[in-house]
Amino acid sequence: MITTTNPRTGATTDLDLLDTTTAEVDRLAERAAQAAPGLAALGREGRARALEAVADALEAAREELVRVADDETGLGEARLNGELSRAAFQFRLFAEALREGSYLEAAIDHAGDTPLGPGPDLRRMLLPLGPVAVFGASNFPFAFSVAGGDTASALASGCPVVIKAHDSHPLTSLKSAEAITAGLASAGAPEGTVALVFGQEAAGHLIAHPEIKAVGFTGSLSTGRILLDIINRREDPIPFYGELSSLNPLVVTPGAAAARGDEIAKGLFGSYTGSGGQLCTKPGLAFVPTGPEGDRIVETMQALTAEGGGHVLLNQRISQAFDTIADRLVSAGAPVAARGQVDGADGFVVPPVLLATQASDLSAELTEECFGPLIVVARYDGEKDLAAALELMPHSLTATVHAEDDEADTVASLSRLLEPLVGRLVFNGYPTGVRVSWAQHHGGPWPSTNSQHTSVGVTAIRRFLRPFVWQNAPESVLPEELHEGYSAIPRRIDGALVLPGSAR
Amino acid sequence: MITTTNPRTGATTDLDLLDTTTAEVDRLAERAAQAAPGLAALGREGRARALEAVADALEAAREELVRVADDETGLGEARLNGELSRAAFQFRLFAEALREGSYLEAAIDHAGDTPLGPGPDLRRMLLPLGPVAVFGASNFPFAFSVAGGDTASALASGCPVVIKAHDSHPLTSLKSAEAITAGLASAGAPEGTVALVFGQEAAGHLIAHPEIKAVGFTGSLSTGRILLDIINRREDPIPFYGELSSLNPLVVTPGAAAARGDEIAKGLFGSYTGSGGQLCTKPGLAFVPTGPEGDRIVETMQALTAEGGGHVLLNQRISQAFDTIADRLVSAGAPVAARGQVDGADGFVVPPVLLATQASDLSAELTEECFGPLIVVARYDGEKDLAAALELMPHSLTATVHAEDDEADTVASLSRLLEPLVGRLVFNGYPTGVRVSWAQHHGGPWPSTNSQHTSVGVTAIRRFLRPFVWQNAPESVLPEELHEGYSAIPRRIDGALVLPGSAR
Repeated sequence: MITTTNPRTGATTDLDLLDTTTAEVDRLAERAAQAAPGLAALGREGRARALEAVADALEAAREELVRVADDETGLGEARLNGELSRAAFQFRLFAEALREGSYLEAAIDHAGDTPLGPGPDLRRMLLPLGPVAVFGASNFPFAFSVAGGDTASALASGCPVVIKAHDSHPLTSLKSAEAITAGLASAGAPEGTVALVFGQEAAGHLIAHPEIKAVGFTGSLSTGRILLDIINRREDPIPFYGELSSLNPLVVTPGAAAARGDEIAKGLFGSYTGSGGQLCTKPGLAFVPTGPEGDRIVETMQALTAEGGGHVLLNQRISQAFDTIADRLVSAGAPVAARGQVDGADGFVVPPVLLATQASDLSAELTEECFGPLIVVARYDGEKDLAAALELMPHSLTATVHAEDDEADTVASLSRLLEPLVGRLVFNGYPTGVRVSWAQHHGGPWPSTNSQHTSVGVTAIRRFLRPFVWQNAPESVLPEELHEGYSAIPRRIDGALVLPGSAR
Repeated sequence: MITTTNPRTGATTDLDLLDTTTAEVDRLAERAAQAAPGLAALGREGRARALEAVADALEAAREELVRVADDETGLGEARLNGELSRAAFQFRLFAEALREGSYLEAAIDHAGDTPLGPGPDLRRMLLPLGPVAVFGASNFPFAFSVAGGDTASALASGCPVVIKAHDSHPLTSLKSAEAITAGLASAGAPEGTVALVFGQEAAGHLIAHPEIKAVGFTGSLSTGRILLDIINRREDPIPFYGELSSLNPLVVTPGAAAARGDEIAKGLFGSYTGSGGQLCTKPGLAFVPTGPEGDRIVETMQALTAEGGGHVLLNQRISQAFDTIADRLVSAGAPVAARGQVDGADGFVVPPVLLATQASDLSAELTEECFGPLIVVARYDGEKDLAAALELMPHSLTATVHAEDDEADTVASLSRLLEPLVGRLVFNGYPTGVRVSWAQHHGGPWPSTNSQHTSVGVTAIRRFLRPFVWQNAPESVLPEELHEGYSAIPRRIDGALVLPGSAR
């Protein structure tokens, strides 16, 4: 029997659901494989309409989805409404990308003489990999879960999806899958295009299944490693797209501390406590200069933290890990500078926590990610001190620099130091509040993700596609996008990019 | 002491070379990491010039390189001259790709209102991953070895390369590395941009080295598996681009057999024996229809094979494996239909071998790849018989169909059956003789490669790049390709692809 837990109270409710059996996982994976040709045959326009139908279905179910998710996650209706809008937006953005069509990377080299002799006609395009396993994340019950970007990008690419529901929000997962399934059905997608499984055994069985061709996962490094080990034992290794761990260091320069210390202190407090600090891009370590202007930032953050109320965390495991890791960080040399208020004893509620240390005292132990409303502030004394500390930084999704216009040299040297460590470099803002758009990206060197991964932004679709070339093929077997006269999408023809409608 | 062996005679010569020590591997990997910023700083034009200088240096050394390679591989001067031209061409093609610039996938989303609220300015581009380990292949001493496509594409991307010399052609490897190093130096590339290592221990140590960020390998499935296991034990898994095994099935339809059986028999003989059958794209299994027109194809191939002279294989290991696997295929149910002539007993010389079986008798054992001049011809009786046999096909780089214009239904159903199995589908030609161009691709589902891999064609560069995003960054820290006014390369601006020189 699967249970759901209200993190505000800790109260559990039995659901009329069981863990998925391995036999059922087999059936769902095979059904997904059978659905693949039909999903591909919808074509770009058909799949774009299906994605829009999913977005509509999610929004039509908004009231129930947000209510159920709020009960299961404690994230609050405002945040959950925004997140559901983001999830729907992601499906619509991929519909736009399908219509635009350059994600196919269509290319034609006509037959002809080459410096190495006569060359055949070659036509290249990306094709869907096949069924994808997606793992729902605890912290985004919509936008990184059943209705999340992995699902949207996989469906856009033409890959059916079998989703492992996160055990923190089983009912939200079920209701999301129902909405998605209804949306897909209304647009003529084959049955089995999306399926949902519950339970750890089902998850392990799923990613070992021969019909599964890629895995998208957002979660902890330890669980990611377990999944990767299962994949490595497969006869055919498949791509594992894992988003696993990220500290997201943030640097405040002396100039920025002097010019807008208060604003930064407030922004940083909001960024480390928003959504209870349960964001992969939460800044977990902030470098603040020594001296009175840096002192003032820390004092403001202390005051805000001390006045801050408790945050409901997503589940007991996360709440307990928060306490454990906070204690570890304190023991490793970052004493508590401020701690917020927690009323009552129900549920998985923790206070915001501000720890303080010196940059010169940083160690590997002090750069451990703590999921939840906690930040370590490290005071640094000059650029050398800072540069030495940055050498200890683990790889992250993001790094952030707050600097003033007249600090160009500092900004240049910080950029050089931070670029190799991360996938996104933010200036004078906060890494949380990720914009979803064409140029966006969500990855970084291991263990934040693997370096080439991205689960946010249009290019996320690239993870689920493979190149294919037809040589001297009759037009009847070619996808229409590679027909000689087709001109509705950007294509590379004899080496030159040609836009839709361009004369050649 | 490293020795080199002449495969025509089996005679060995000691070289003034030792296996690279692990300490030296460490030094070379660290030197490569130190070279990376300088190589990146050359910029696209600087790297394009460096690649052209390498191409020039390889061609300037042509006479010596071909002579040394012929002594070490027995491939013959005509083939080796052509291969050296291909290797030089590959460097020049990547120079062209660098100047064209769309490989960077530059994208800009301007700050502004979005359906989800105000969005920051985002600028995305691909950056080099870092030092790459490349393994030279035995069968292409130039084009898939030290001077091969992996090296060219990695250098183009801005990644230094540490290359494991194949033990079948150590001197060719050394001379190639010298030419490349001289070419790079003349164009101002940093010292350590390319390095060469010898020996298995060095290879294992190299791919476990923390500074190595990706591995390119063309070779056997068994060696590939060993390398992958080493990579899986790293703290940070890195991409492994392995091209491992490929049967390359070829189908002759009844119409093609009737229309041009003789031509196909001759073409197929040339394709399976060219370069001694030591090509990853060699057709290893041909489906020929039953009946008199199919009989005639087989008879012509038998006659050509029986008259065919011996082929010098690259080394003793390959020669012995050829005999062993040929015996295994015969035992598994494909008796010898014809075998060519071998004069004398010196060196690693084998005859061309034609085995024959029925499509209905095919088994996993009969689809084993045999590296060398061997082909299995399977006779099939109608489309159902053929379709059932194709179900047993292992994944391959290529599949080939010979069919006539009036067989559209057959062609359509064969395409549907073959597409999931391969990366390239060839019509009325042969899979060998791979065109190097923008639309080309060299990959297929595991174990031919991993599905998303390609080591031939311009998109090979994508393997060694990672996405990076700057958010609200001052122009001073942005690469010039992301400056607001830059217009020399294709960029995606606010979702729309913009070509160089286009007005917006």
